[in-house]
Amino acid sequence: MIIMHIDATQQQITTAVARVEDNGLRAHLIQGEERTVIGVVGDGRKIFKDQFLHLPGVDRVIPISHPYKLASREFIPENSLFPLDGVNVGDNGIVMIAGPCSVESRTQLLETAYAVREAGAHALRGGAYKPRTSPYSFQGLGEAGLEMLAEAREATGMPIVTEIMAPEHVPLLTRYADVLQVGARNMQNYALLNAVGESQHPVLLKRSMMASIDELLMAAEYILSHGNRRVMLCERGIRTFETATRNTTDINAIPVLKSLTHLPVLLDPSHSTGHWEYVTAVARAGIAAGADGLIVEVHVNPSEAKSDGGQSLKPERYAELVSQVRAVSEAVGRSLAPVPLTAASSVGTGES
Amino acid sequence: MIIMHIDATQQQITTAVARVEDNGLRAHLIQGEERTVIGVVGDGRKIFKDQFLHLPGVDRVIPISHPYKLASREFIPENSLFPLDGVNVGDNGIVMIAGPCSVESRTQLLETAYAVREAGAHALRGGAYKPRTSPYSFQGLGEAGLEMLAEAREATGMPIVTEIMAPEHVPLLTRYADVLQVGARNMQNYALLNAVGESQHPVLLKRSMMASIDELLMAAEYILSHGNRRVMLCERGIRTFETATRNTTDINAIPVLKSLTHLPVLLDPSHSTGHWEYVTAVARAGIAAGADGLIVEVHVNPSEAKSDGGQSLKPERYAELVSQVRAVSEAVGRSLAPVPLTAASSVGTGES
Amino acid sequence: MIIMHIDATQQQITTAVARVEDNGLRAHLIQGEERTVIGVVGDGRKIFKDQFLHLPGVDRVIPISHPYKLASREFIPENSLFPLDGVNVGDNGIVMIAGPCSVESRTQLLETAYAVREAGAHALRGGAYKPRTSPYSFQGLGEAGLEMLAEAREATGMPIVTEIMAPEHVPLLTRYADVLQVGARNMQNYALLNAVGESQHPVLLKRSMMASIDELLMAAEYILSHGNRRVMLCERGIRTFETATRNTTDINAIPVLKSLTHLPVLLDPSHSTGHWEYVTAVARAGIAAGADGLIVEVHVNPSEAKSDGGQSLKPERYAELVSQVRAVSEAVGRSLAPVPLTAASSVGTGES
Amino acid sequence: MIIMHIDATQQQITTAVARVEDNGLRAHLIQGEERTVIGVVGDGRKIFKDQFLHLPGVDRVIPISHPYKLASREFIPENSLFPLDGVNVGDNGIVMIAGPCSVESRTQLLETAYAVREAGAHALRGGAYKPRTSPYSFQGLGEAGLEMLAEAREATGMPIVTEIMAPEHVPLLTRYADVLQVGARNMQNYALLNAVGESQHPVLLKRSMMASIDELLMAAEYILSHGNRRVMLCERGIRTFETATRNTTDINAIPVLKSLTHLPVLLDPSHSTGHWEYVTAVARAGIAAGADGLIVEVHVNPSEAKSDGGQSLKPERYAELVSQVRAVSEAVGRSLAPVPLTAASSVGTGES
Repeated sequence: MIIMHIDATQQQITTAVARVEDNGLRAHLIQGEERTVIGVVGDGRKIFKDQFLHLPGVDRVIPISHPYKLASREFIPENSLFPLDGVNVGDNGIVMIAGPCSVESRTQLLETAYAVREAGAHALRGGAYKPRTSPYSFQGLGEAGLEMLAEAREATGMPIVTEIMAPEHVPLLTRYADVLQVGARNMQNYALLNAVGESQHPVLLKRSMMASIDELLMAAEYILSHGNRRVMLCERGIRTFETATRNTTDINAIPVLKSLTHLPVLLDPSHSTGHWEYVTAVARAGIAAGADGLIVEVHVNPSEAKSDGGQSLKPERYAELVSQVRAVSEAVGRSLAPVPLTAASSVGTGES
Repeated sequence: MIIMHIDATQQQITTAVARVEDNGLRAHLIQGEERTVIGVVGDGRKIFKDQFLHLPGVDRVIPISHPYKLASREFIPENSLFPLDGVNVGDNGIVMIAGPCSVESRTQLLETAYAVREAGAHALRGGAYKPRTSPYSFQGLGEAGLEMLAEAREATGMPIVTEIMAPEHVPLLTRYADVLQVGARNMQNYALLNAVGESQHPVLLKRSMMASIDELLMAAEYILSHGNRRVMLCERGIRTFETATRNTTDINAIPVLKSLTHLPVLLDPSHSTGHWEYVTAVARAGIAAGADGLIVEVHVNPSEAKSDGGQSLKPERYAELVSQVRAVSEAVGRSLAPVPLTAASSVGTGES
Repeated sequence: MIIMHIDATQQQITTAVARVEDNGLRAHLIQGEERTVIGVVGDGRKIFKDQFLHLPGVDRVIPISHPYKLASREFIPENSLFPLDGVNVGDNGIVMIAGPCSVESRTQLLETAYAVREAGAHALRGGAYKPRTSPYSFQGLGEAGLEMLAEAREATGMPIVTEIMAPEHVPLLTRYADVLQVGARNMQNYALLNAVGESQHPVLLKRSMMASIDELLMAAEYILSHGNRRVMLCERGIRTFETATRNTTDINAIPVLKSLTHLPVLLDPSHSTGHWEYVTAVARAGIAAGADGLIVEVHVNPSEAKSDGGQSLKPERYAELVSQVRAVSEAVGRSLAPVPLTAASSVGTGES
Repeated sequence: MIIMHIDATQQQITTAVARVEDNGLRAHLIQGEERTVIGVVGDGRKIFKDQFLHLPGVDRVIPISHPYKLASREFIPENSLFPLDGVNVGDNGIVMIAGPCSVESRTQLLETAYAVREAGAHALRGGAYKPRTSPYSFQGLGEAGLEMLAEAREATGMPIVTEIMAPEHVPLLTRYADVLQVGARNMQNYALLNAVGESQHPVLLKRSMMASIDELLMAAEYILSHGNRRVMLCERGIRTFETATRNTTDINAIPVLKSLTHLPVLLDPSHSTGHWEYVTAVARAGIAAGADGLIVEVHVNPSEAKSDGGQSLKPERYAELVSQVRAVSEAVGRSLAPVPLTAASSVGTGES
């Protein structure tokens, strides 16, 4: 939709129309009382709207179609599901992912893993490579941390979700992790999106704290366009003027995403609030709003944590969260996904 | 807390300390490795922090105490309750306020009032004076609208919540309304806050789309400082960069407010989303997060509404919302407040 | 422009078209590859877009025309000018308004007034009624402050700019003030906008810290629609996630406003930065970006100020600001407006 | 600074103090009227503040020191300068970088390069690897584009600034580029920051649209901590609620950065406005506010550009921008850096 200036000349309109047709599209003129609008008919995703902005007489260009396709519910109306170690992500059962922000030691990880499994988690989160605002902060244990995650998987049967920070880590991380997490700060790191897309490994894609919902879906589109359909989206709070909490949970994003896309939608109430006191309330809200799962930071001893201690729950508080979330999930006609009995892991098994 | 520059001289520190003592407060020096910090002991609410910012050697001033007192849970630990026509606002029972954005006609109002009462509302909302972005939009029916609201109260027994836009309207509106609503755009209209404070009438204070949680509590403090303790707070969405919804529901604000203040906290999911499709999901989320009530726009025929039609629910959808909210409220250990049987109204009755 | 859903039926399209025609407008169908778009031809300002949002099959409604008319440069291409005590606001000469945040005492005001006049100010600002976040802060001297302003005008010949906080203050303030300032927190206080519109007195309208540029122009439209054409707009910083400064100066707003409207555009670098150290740099930037004037807080003794001391300049720093701004104004082909020699004031004289 | 709850017990205070001392720091108690505050003396950068947030009785932790050190003007008071092909970046002379968003063809690049050199540019920008929101958009010419840049450098004598998107590109890009640009979306891509830090190549680090000023300086700290001191910072607009422009130029950030850091500070008015009509006004504002240089998008034929055409200037408009910026730079006591006569490039030469 090309909006002409109120005083655009006939010549300028003709030029703009010609430009539309040069792109292989059809132009449809609407002569308004104040100005002329040119409707562009055809697949506008293929053309570049900026080319019209310098044409004389053009005021604005407004895109009508969504810029994503593979991520859109308009093209794939049914919910996308995929199995993760016996749990069907995106299905009616709520998926619970929990664990420490960082893997810090074998004991810390195993204790936390057993505790969250006991409380009802389906998958274990834990960072071996950590994006930290400060170069002087703990940066993660690297491959040693991955080995601890593998041991925890062996011990508890939970699949592993861990963050990937660079394309060259794909071969290493796909050996250890069941789900590659793309963190908020890397949501528009396109080299990384392409790499995880090509990996064909399940991906948990976190919304950047300043990305619009459309941009999150475009980032998913990068991954999907490599044929990798096992993508979960995760709201983790956006940046606003409010400073009482670390981020602002965009709870609206849950029903908006569920209406725009067929992909599973999770909430991370630990990052979206930044304070352990508020995590449980916002976890309940996420499920009430329609989220398909939660990813929650849990630490056996938060005040000893090397990162994000302030937003981590102790295991007993996490157990209480699971119990409350279970009640809310039933109130909205869902339930927690059953926790599989087997301890076997299933890295890289079949696609939905 | 006064933070000195890294290279502040001893003389500058002495001057700043003297200034603190001139204010009748005590200064407490902390000699850090890099810089000196002056702790100010006493009631800092009484002094004006800007006076220190021009003193040579002063880098920053950080307030430690919250700026509000009457609104703070630190001073009044118990929840504030007050009766509204037989319903105890702020108590365990969830309070439901519903009705049209604007009063448009007798028929529209009465039909909507009966429908929301039937569906389970405790109070009727409806604007007679409307704040509109455009001077060319419908501005409300004024006193004629107030009379229709009075008739609807008579007919259904529901107390009336209506917006006040100017201090000089207090005498008129307190005759008709049970609750004076201060709208988001007037949250820092101090002449109005003082006027509704003096009125001693119940107030529903909406958070401005640009106000921090602290500023909302300071606006409440204006009303409370006139001895008017019947104040409900209402989150109705803040303004952020996200444009997929009209506003961003700050769901974090619900548990944050419940921890900072003893006042009842409501959510308005109609304004906080701006799209009727998302209202019910966010209403459920609000209750799951701990809100004490909901205020929802309902219209018998939203596509004929003169304002906010896009975010208004039809009565049957509102009934569905009430039923879902009831289920969620029970999942979190609460319930909907019982709807009183009597049709009698009770303007201006006793304070909590 | 009405965007239909991708799967809207022919029946739904027909209904939407009929609704457009019921509003006395013409509908223009564009059959795209994916979906149908209905162009609405006629003056869309008169209709209410929300009425379409509940029609089945409608996805979105996108307005094409700007919602304001009297404020728009499309309708009034030439810059609006109006005289203020011998200075032509909106003309090529930059207008400088300066003075304390609040009137605190006769001495403080007179000393500051003489100092800013000496440094090159055209008008004196000073608040007698102050909007304060806290009810416990200094609220202004009221009418006593207005009398001091009148004395300062008498003494220095500068016209007075002072804030109005309630409609009922119009008669009092128009007696004392040459320009009524509507503060940022009241930008959408429509009762106040109507009152200052009716007053026919010059108005300085500040942008709310969370208002879009369109909303600022709509607020101006309220005033203009009462036939009051003497309106200056003022950018004073918006609220964003950045906390290093009190607000974020939206410097883009200066050229955007100059292109959208014929009204004079000022910048308030004191509020838009909140720190006196940054005021001069941002004042220079405002003039470089095309602002028609500046309003700056100056205090003879900022560390004794009862409000906004941290962002007030001392008179000698203000003199330095004027000198730097003069150089920049000449670099962009403008100049500071000459300071009139006469001391006579001219409240309420002729309109442009 | 650890703020205890208003009702913290003596035991809780003792525990918090012990924890401070366990970290090898000293605790300094301030007994306020309402609450106790613990001042932590020592280098707080080494400890992890979150560890205190779970201790019973702790309300908040407020850091006093800035988290960066090598980037801070408190540690390095003098401006950092470094030579770039005969121009001293960070010195009194303003540095002008210009060129197309993307390298699209040999002709486009060479024509633009000659035109901007003629108009007064010191360095040529142009992307060979492009971060694009959509996977369906033009992604850059890759190494072929780098070769065209090399040819343009040969032909015009201008050093090359080009974006790096992945750590593994360092060897390739340092062969061709004089300055590695880290784009806004990668500002917190720590793998990339480490890689460019290790490269010892000059870096232009753009502020993320979502990053606070402190976070920008922390990102610079990552690079500096590898011993690479040739870092320029670049404000390119932040994301806010305002949609009239693509981003909001944070003009305050210019003087704030100049006061906090010794690193050179540039402005990119093309991205910070997103509309070519506003680029020149905001470029002038940037220089008036104290920026050390500008990076501007110029295209010989913007309406044919494959990216960012809407914000690119035609060469003649860029020449006009240079002339206006020259005038403003002189008004603020600076000047444009002289354009070196020689055509020789100097990749990787000595550090400042």
